[in-house]
Amino acid sequence: MSTKDPKDTVRVALLGCGTVGGEVARLLTEQAGELAARAGARLEIAGIAVRRPDKHPELPQELLTADVTGLVTRDDVDVVVELVGGIEPVRGWLLDALKAGKSVVTANKALLADHSAELFEAADASGVDLYFEAAVAGAIPLLRPLRESLAGDRITRVMGIVNGTTNFILSAMDATGAGYAETLDEASRLGYAEADPTADVDGYDAASKAAILASLAFHTRVTAADVHREGIADVTASDIAAARSLGRTVKLLCICERVTDEDGVESVAVRVHPVMIPLSHQLSGVNGAFNAVYVEADAAGELMFYGQGAGGAPTASAVLGDLVAVARNLVLGGRGPRESAHAALPVRPMGQTPTRYHLSLYVADVAGVLAQVAQVFADHGVSIAAVRQSDSKGSASLVVITHLATDAALKSTVDQIAKLDVVHEVVSVMRVEGEDQ
Amino acid sequence: MSTKDPKDTVRVALLGCGTVGGEVARLLTEQAGELAARAGARLEIAGIAVRRPDKHPELPQELLTADVTGLVTRDDVDVVVELVGGIEPVRGWLLDALKAGKSVVTANKALLADHSAELFEAADASGVDLYFEAAVAGAIPLLRPLRESLAGDRITRVMGIVNGTTNFILSAMDATGAGYAETLDEASRLGYAEADPTADVDGYDAASKAAILASLAFHTRVTAADVHREGIADVTASDIAAARSLGRTVKLLCICERVTDEDGVESVAVRVHPVMIPLSHQLSGVNGAFNAVYVEADAAGELMFYGQGAGGAPTASAVLGDLVAVARNLVLGGRGPRESAHAALPVRPMGQTPTRYHLSLYVADVAGVLAQVAQVFADHGVSIAAVRQSDSKGSASLVVITHLATDAALKSTVDQIAKLDVVHEVVSVMRVEGEDQ
Repeated sequence: MSTKDPKDTVRVALLGCGTVGGEVARLLTEQAGELAARAGARLEIAGIAVRRPDKHPELPQELLTADVTGLVTRDDVDVVVELVGGIEPVRGWLLDALKAGKSVVTANKALLADHSAELFEAADASGVDLYFEAAVAGAIPLLRPLRESLAGDRITRVMGIVNGTTNFILSAMDATGAGYAETLDEASRLGYAEADPTADVDGYDAASKAAILASLAFHTRVTAADVHREGIADVTASDIAAARSLGRTVKLLCICERVTDEDGVESVAVRVHPVMIPLSHQLSGVNGAFNAVYVEADAAGELMFYGQGAGGAPTASAVLGDLVAVARNLVLGGRGPRESAHAALPVRPMGQTPTRYHLSLYVADVAGVLAQVAQVFADHGVSIAAVRQSDSKGSASLVVITHLATDAALKSTVDQIAKLDVVHEVVSVMRVEGEDQ
Repeated sequence: MSTKDPKDTVRVALLGCGTVGGEVARLLTEQAGELAARAGARLEIAGIAVRRPDKHPELPQELLTADVTGLVTRDDVDVVVELVGGIEPVRGWLLDALKAGKSVVTANKALLADHSAELFEAADASGVDLYFEAAVAGAIPLLRPLRESLAGDRITRVMGIVNGTTNFILSAMDATGAGYAETLDEASRLGYAEADPTADVDGYDAASKAAILASLAFHTRVTAADVHREGIADVTASDIAAARSLGRTVKLLCICERVTDEDGVESVAVRVHPVMIPLSHQLSGVNGAFNAVYVEADAAGELMFYGQGAGGAPTASAVLGDLVAVARNLVLGGRGPRESAHAALPVRPMGQTPTRYHLSLYVADVAGVLAQVAQVFADHGVSIAAVRQSDSKGSASLVVITHLATDAALKSTVDQIAKLDVVHEVVSVMRVEGEDQ
């Protein structure tokens, strides 16, 4: 453990100087007086690592370096702020930094989702801090409340909109009635989707965040591989229309739950997929690039956190909050929260996770169709919550919403219903959340 | 400063054992293992101070005492949790505790609003912690984000629904169309209003919370006396109906703003009063006994925090979060946030605070009325944003919404308009927030 005297200057190594890094550098300079008053020490940039120093004429040249390992282990560096992203080579850099006794502030969700145990161990061994508020939901103070404010409570559920790109696309599909492909094109044109949107639209980004949230909420190591993940590429205009006609909307949610089975055994279920939620639910009004996370805890009840989930300035705000916390700890002594994995609950597979389905079908307009469909549900032990039938030109529309059942039972129910002769088309299948059961 | 060895047990003195205290005691016992894992030390109740120990057969008798000063200065006590409320004699008890080197966790908004400087000084002198998350918005993790997560950002505005009783009454008036007095009776009957509802309905409770929020947000000492306060007793069914007809609703808000005048001089304006906000605004959907606080910061942008603002379990959740933080500091060393009053901005009087008014009038149905009314606005330098006129049986209805002007200018404009011969009745006057200007 590196022992440092209380100090009046905390020196920061910045890795990466893109949109977020640039904002962090700007705010560190412009708000220097304010930050010093809050941190109890001046925050000073000791160096900035960028791939090509010659490509950054806008930055003070004497601070720039391409030698990341050299910078993060330099004697005069106290804190490393990592804004490069991706797993390798960042993982090695941060382990080097932590082993050299530097605290780390990072916005790297992919790294945290898969390697937080290793990083926390290195931080512990050196007695330094690891903060990562900006890794989930950008500017929204969310990880600190989960790790600290709710430390005396028992969280049962975390459910959130944590990816702005997919939320923008689904909001736009809902507003215009357009299909997925053309809305994605529009989002790309407007700069709301990356040139390669895979990480967002296929749910990888949200799954990383879900892993981080579940780990903190349930004191259990959850990695991205533990998260059941479905993206939004299969959401159709029909799905959105079906939701709308039922007073619901479609969102890509990350859902982290504590599940207790009949024998009282606890596990956690963590998933990312499109969901129908009622328009009356707090999360339904979260549109465009905004993020929001809904938390349920035994004592606190329902909580919601809302704000900007991405962007240079919002993310920089979260990074600076962490940086002030690290600086305060260096000045006053003390440590930020350590890994909390003492509960070590098992992760429940998706098939055994309780969910509810909405199913919208075109069926033959003949007597006895509902009876046939209902029998399939009964055969799989799935209980029906509501049914709506309506006729239209020779074919009838049938909408079913189920009670809770295991996802596997629901899936095989739908598979078998699709094979019934009387079923002309499965218009929409979607999981349902956020309503009374 | 009291120096303590790292320890495996943190001993808690509980002052008051009503609804919240009872929940805290229950959770300390039931969640003992979990709390110990999170705090790094066992949390143990050292004693419970109640006025009449003989009236609490449900509590362990050996822990009870009526001697508060004796308890809070006892050698084996590490932390004092205060849930009695009110200013005296609690102020003296907590100063005694802090001077004796005990950290303090309190939910006491009235005390914090008026005496935080003195309490923080005592905490600093002893090198101990003062936490008070439960004092504002119950279970909602709000003060920690303001004090810590946003420590690197510049907050420009905090606007919130922080009193559940008044929000319940206004929500019910909006839903039923009933008047204030009868809705208050109903709220009392249902247990949503105290027998003496003054502190809630006259805005004292919200004003204390506003003072605390403004102090933290603007790094400036703001007391309850600095807060302009108007309650909801004058809100009429007509006001609510007028709001509804304009796509707005009425909420009692606390509004804390950073105001920069033409010369670039900064000040803070802090106020509690009924406000019309558009139905599209995030805060408009916060109904019943829920609380929500909306924060704007330079880098983070818009944030909102939502949850239960009162009640035994939710408040206990916030208290326990603080208690875990204090315990961690005792175990690991380090300190919680200290008073941050370095900005020391002046408080702006209400008359000089920029606001916007909505004004609804019955006027004579003759030509030139709008011209006369508009002239009064012009005479006071108040610019009109929108006007709506409609006729009904000999009298006409005129609705005016202004641009921003000082509250004093708006007030004298309304006073003079009320005296015009052509104005039959001032139906509703209310400030407007949360829309584009």
